[in-house]
Amino acid sequence: MATKPNYVSAKEFDKIFQSVCNWGRWGKDDEKGTLNYITPEHIRKAASLVRTGRTVSLAIPINTVAGPDNPHPALHYVTHNHDIDIPQGEPHFVLDFLGSECHGDCHTHIDALCHVSYKGKLYNDKPISSVTSLGPKIMDITAYAHGIVGRGVLLDIPRLRGVKWLEPGEAVTAEELEAAEKVQGVRLSEGDIFLFRTGHHRRRLELGPWNNDYDGEGKAGLHVNAIPLLHQRRVAVFLPDGDGETVPCNVEGMAYPIHALQITSMGMVCADSLQFEELVTICEEENRWEFIVVATPLRLPGGTGSLFNPLAIF
Amino acid sequence: MATKPNYVSAKEFDKIFQSVCNWGRWGKDDEKGTLNYITPEHIRKAASLVRTGRTVSLAIPINTVAGPDNPHPALHYVTHNHDIDIPQGEPHFVLDFLGSECHGDCHTHIDALCHVSYKGKLYNDKPISSVTSLGPKIMDITAYAHGIVGRGVLLDIPRLRGVKWLEPGEAVTAEELEAAEKVQGVRLSEGDIFLFRTGHHRRRLELGPWNNDYDGEGKAGLHVNAIPLLHQRRVAVFLPDGDGETVPCNVEGMAYPIHALQITSMGMVCADSLQFEELVTICEEENRWEFIVVATPLRLPGGTGSLFNPLAIF
Amino acid sequence: MATKPNYVSAKEFDKIFQSVCNWGRWGKDDEKGTLNYITPEHIRKAASLVRTGRTVSLAIPINTVAGPDNPHPALHYVTHNHDIDIPQGEPHFVLDFLGSECHGDCHTHIDALCHVSYKGKLYNDKPISSVTSLGPKIMDITAYAHGIVGRGVLLDIPRLRGVKWLEPGEAVTAEELEAAEKVQGVRLSEGDIFLFRTGHHRRRLELGPWNNDYDGEGKAGLHVNAIPLLHQRRVAVFLPDGDGETVPCNVEGMAYPIHALQITSMGMVCADSLQFEELVTICEEENRWEFIVVATPLRLPGGTGSLFNPLAIF
Amino acid sequence: MATKPNYVSAKEFDKIFQSVCNWGRWGKDDEKGTLNYITPEHIRKAASLVRTGRTVSLAIPINTVAGPDNPHPALHYVTHNHDIDIPQGEPHFVLDFLGSECHGDCHTHIDALCHVSYKGKLYNDKPISSVTSLGPKIMDITAYAHGIVGRGVLLDIPRLRGVKWLEPGEAVTAEELEAAEKVQGVRLSEGDIFLFRTGHHRRRLELGPWNNDYDGEGKAGLHVNAIPLLHQRRVAVFLPDGDGETVPCNVEGMAYPIHALQITSMGMVCADSLQFEELVTICEEENRWEFIVVATPLRLPGGTGSLFNPLAIF
Repeated sequence: MATKPNYVSAKEFDKIFQSVCNWGRWGKDDEKGTLNYITPEHIRKAASLVRTGRTVSLAIPINTVAGPDNPHPALHYVTHNHDIDIPQGEPHFVLDFLGSECHGDCHTHIDALCHVSYKGKLYNDKPISSVTSLGPKIMDITAYAHGIVGRGVLLDIPRLRGVKWLEPGEAVTAEELEAAEKVQGVRLSEGDIFLFRTGHHRRRLELGPWNNDYDGEGKAGLHVNAIPLLHQRRVAVFLPDGDGETVPCNVEGMAYPIHALQITSMGMVCADSLQFEELVTICEEENRWEFIVVATPLRLPGGTGSLFNPLAIF
Repeated sequence: MATKPNYVSAKEFDKIFQSVCNWGRWGKDDEKGTLNYITPEHIRKAASLVRTGRTVSLAIPINTVAGPDNPHPALHYVTHNHDIDIPQGEPHFVLDFLGSECHGDCHTHIDALCHVSYKGKLYNDKPISSVTSLGPKIMDITAYAHGIVGRGVLLDIPRLRGVKWLEPGEAVTAEELEAAEKVQGVRLSEGDIFLFRTGHHRRRLELGPWNNDYDGEGKAGLHVNAIPLLHQRRVAVFLPDGDGETVPCNVEGMAYPIHALQITSMGMVCADSLQFEELVTICEEENRWEFIVVATPLRLPGGTGSLFNPLAIF
Repeated sequence: MATKPNYVSAKEFDKIFQSVCNWGRWGKDDEKGTLNYITPEHIRKAASLVRTGRTVSLAIPINTVAGPDNPHPALHYVTHNHDIDIPQGEPHFVLDFLGSECHGDCHTHIDALCHVSYKGKLYNDKPISSVTSLGPKIMDITAYAHGIVGRGVLLDIPRLRGVKWLEPGEAVTAEELEAAEKVQGVRLSEGDIFLFRTGHHRRRLELGPWNNDYDGEGKAGLHVNAIPLLHQRRVAVFLPDGDGETVPCNVEGMAYPIHALQITSMGMVCADSLQFEELVTICEEENRWEFIVVATPLRLPGGTGSLFNPLAIF
Repeated sequence: MATKPNYVSAKEFDKIFQSVCNWGRWGKDDEKGTLNYITPEHIRKAASLVRTGRTVSLAIPINTVAGPDNPHPALHYVTHNHDIDIPQGEPHFVLDFLGSECHGDCHTHIDALCHVSYKGKLYNDKPISSVTSLGPKIMDITAYAHGIVGRGVLLDIPRLRGVKWLEPGEAVTAEELEAAEKVQGVRLSEGDIFLFRTGHHRRRLELGPWNNDYDGEGKAGLHVNAIPLLHQRRVAVFLPDGDGETVPCNVEGMAYPIHALQITSMGMVCADSLQFEELVTICEEENRWEFIVVATPLRLPGGTGSLFNPLAIF
């Protein structure tokens, strides 16, 4: 099982970009992309997976402390405390303010389809001028306002490899995803929500935060050859720990090739920086790697993404 | 059906406060309050309500424009647009920042149990010194981190009354809630998530925003005599349009009596400022007022509340 | 003295724009504009005006309350209070956070030269692409980092007219400025800092805030025919109460003609929303309308403007 | 010249605290503290120091990048760019938002007198309950709203020692301040603004940022025995590079002893994190270490401090 496969040339990358392209597939004004794969019937079936009624968060706690993977820490301030009376009557209140970049590296968040452009184009052949200084005019995060609900399937790569986590720079190939499916007895299918575990957050919990960006030590992620597999299987949603990217990058002259393929070409519903450490314990206990996932971005008009707290229910 | 029942004296209020008090019920260090009513079995049953697979948001779009009901508008800024190249390679990105008070009047949000104190005490007899200038040390919003999932029951009071919405100052009594149950053929039971509709958001959509606070025109809400009913029925979660309060208030010398009873005394999971306008259409089409609700606050350590986007699934 | 002179056509406006244009005057890469008029010798002379040693702020207190002229209220939060111990030792601290739009309508602020474009061009013939989503690459507020110091001259138009303030829509012409000079015994000269008083803030203090923007009641300001006078006199800095604009506007099909002329064409150092109510008392007491002004924008790289607190010293 | 003098015991510290205490000196409700030392006559004299008309900023550029000395980076976002038309007419605008903690370690700022408490008391014997979660009720930064203007005197300690900068942990004693006075031919006197240079910012420019706080490498500053000297000389304002503190601290069991003495006991006008690198060049060229300083905090009601950009004029 190759963990560092050969480099992909810029030309090969563009071929993949073409081969997985969903532009026009759901109409020229589509804003939902691969969320279209999830039908009401998928949701009904996903709900039938609820057996023990256990719920678990897939989010990392919001982090207000600057660090190597948190250059834009969230702001969280008490704005009013119980020491202040309200104008009339007795109850007192504490209030707070939260401010955060919607795409902070260490904050669990979802991306809108307007988030990534490639060669001047957004998903569905839309020009980047669709996003102004006031925000996107199309394909903002409200395209997912009524929630992302479906069958979640976790592929746990460290479990497959017998390690605690993948190391920065290690790329997971299509072949390895299929191997994990076999070992776990699951198969990614049309309309599925794919939870991709590299152990990124486990590494952070044990070794502390590190700069996992292009100017730092990097991170484990997908190999670009895994993208056509996700396309063929008609996977609807991609939920990674990390952000799916392998850094340093194994595509010639590129950064963020996974984002370009998934979001710009496929119109895929993608999130960043989830954690599955609480989840895997339950999966092992219940001996199953499928469950219903319910995820709701904030209903933010013009949002290019959103902090969120996706949930698995068993 | 009395819509403006007699005034409640301060003494009577304190009696109600005592009669619905859950302090100590789930242990002296409990932080979940009435969320304890929801068992895995409740969740399993709630999931079995999913039949047609339709999903609908219960949130109001986040509002960045100041207005009479939005004195603290959210901040939403593009921080980086597609005009900026990343250091290496081709894809370009748009990023944004969202800042908001967690308890903004016109933003759909959930309250932590530390949010409200009465006579110097928080829920479960904890002193207000449990909340410092850095935020709460106990009973913050992470008590609900693994989600709020259960059977949702909508009681639609304007439907019962044959009006489009309740007018500011109108109070809904226990008797009226029971009348709505009868007409709709549902019954609030242990572990339920109670969606309470006054038509607040419908009124806003049709007449525009108004100052619904104590220094303005007010709003429709519960009468305090409805609280013992919710207590007896062991309702777990309260999701109103508006915030549950009747303003002007019908309790002597008080403001926010509903908050004090629900949060401080009962330890009830409460939210503010939902909207059910999309929901009611589906309820009427499906001719049912029960469904599963899934709601996940952001996982914010020290949060006294959180913007969120609760979901109903049919 | 005409207070509502005839309308100016778009063609006449463009003629004025050409006639006052300073593009290239101080070199093709100049970022200081009319600040170049202030020489060290001007500063030395201005300092010699200090006789009684009185100082007075020309700023409005920062306003955190939304209102008709404050749609983007400043955020001001205590982030840490004396209730929190520092890790080691005794002293305790209170800390706070301030957030504000740099060009808020009711907040005293200064504009950078990149702030205004006209027909796709910034001051000095620079393209608007000089400002990206990360901010301006040229002509940001740090062009004034070492301060704006010079002779301030107040022209008090309500005093000239014998009124408390000018009403919204009233435009002050070149002729009226000259009349004020005569009455007050001062003359705007090369390198001067011009304080232009319409009584805007006095009106606000007495009548309360109003929406003074284009979608509201408007405000008093300059007539565009006053701009050539400022150009001929080589005035360096323009400090108005209000923002200099007359609203509704007396130029055909335009909004903000004064900003376009002053900032884009002349490269003039301009500020908005000062208040002279404390100043005029001192001017009357000292019977003089000239003094040294010292104003320092925050040293914000990439700033398009800055809150500031300019000072007059007598 | 001792750079690491003997440790000061807690008891000795309290003696110094008593000996420099100005509580009650300017009345029990005084909010200006040592700013009272600056009379109009001082300002008049300070203005007479302007000879060459050169101006220079004493502020560090505002820093939006997290780093070891910038755990709370400022937020700076373009909120509206030239790509957006205004509702009526031609000029286009770029606008921005700035958010910052008022006491950020690497941002030039001034402290209000409410900022520091010692043993439960603020300056002038006021209780810490004078500061609530909504901010201070007394002694906020508006006490300095009309500016801080006076004679500035720079004592350049690295120049005295013949080094580029002082190293972390080095403490400057009263004796060394007097030695610097002698060498530079100046003397700190009543009402003066004392600019204290350790070379902190020069070190940062040459070696890069470092964690200079109590959990890091520390910084150079005053020895506590210098405080009685400042008290005897009736110095009005303290403007250091760094923040005046020597870290690690040379007082038993204490952190921030200089802040407690200056602000809580003396009521001294104090700022943090200035830079004198541009200033020293001019001082050397003009061969003088005195000049007028003009500094204006933002006019922020309830502010516990303020970013500012103080100016020296020669």
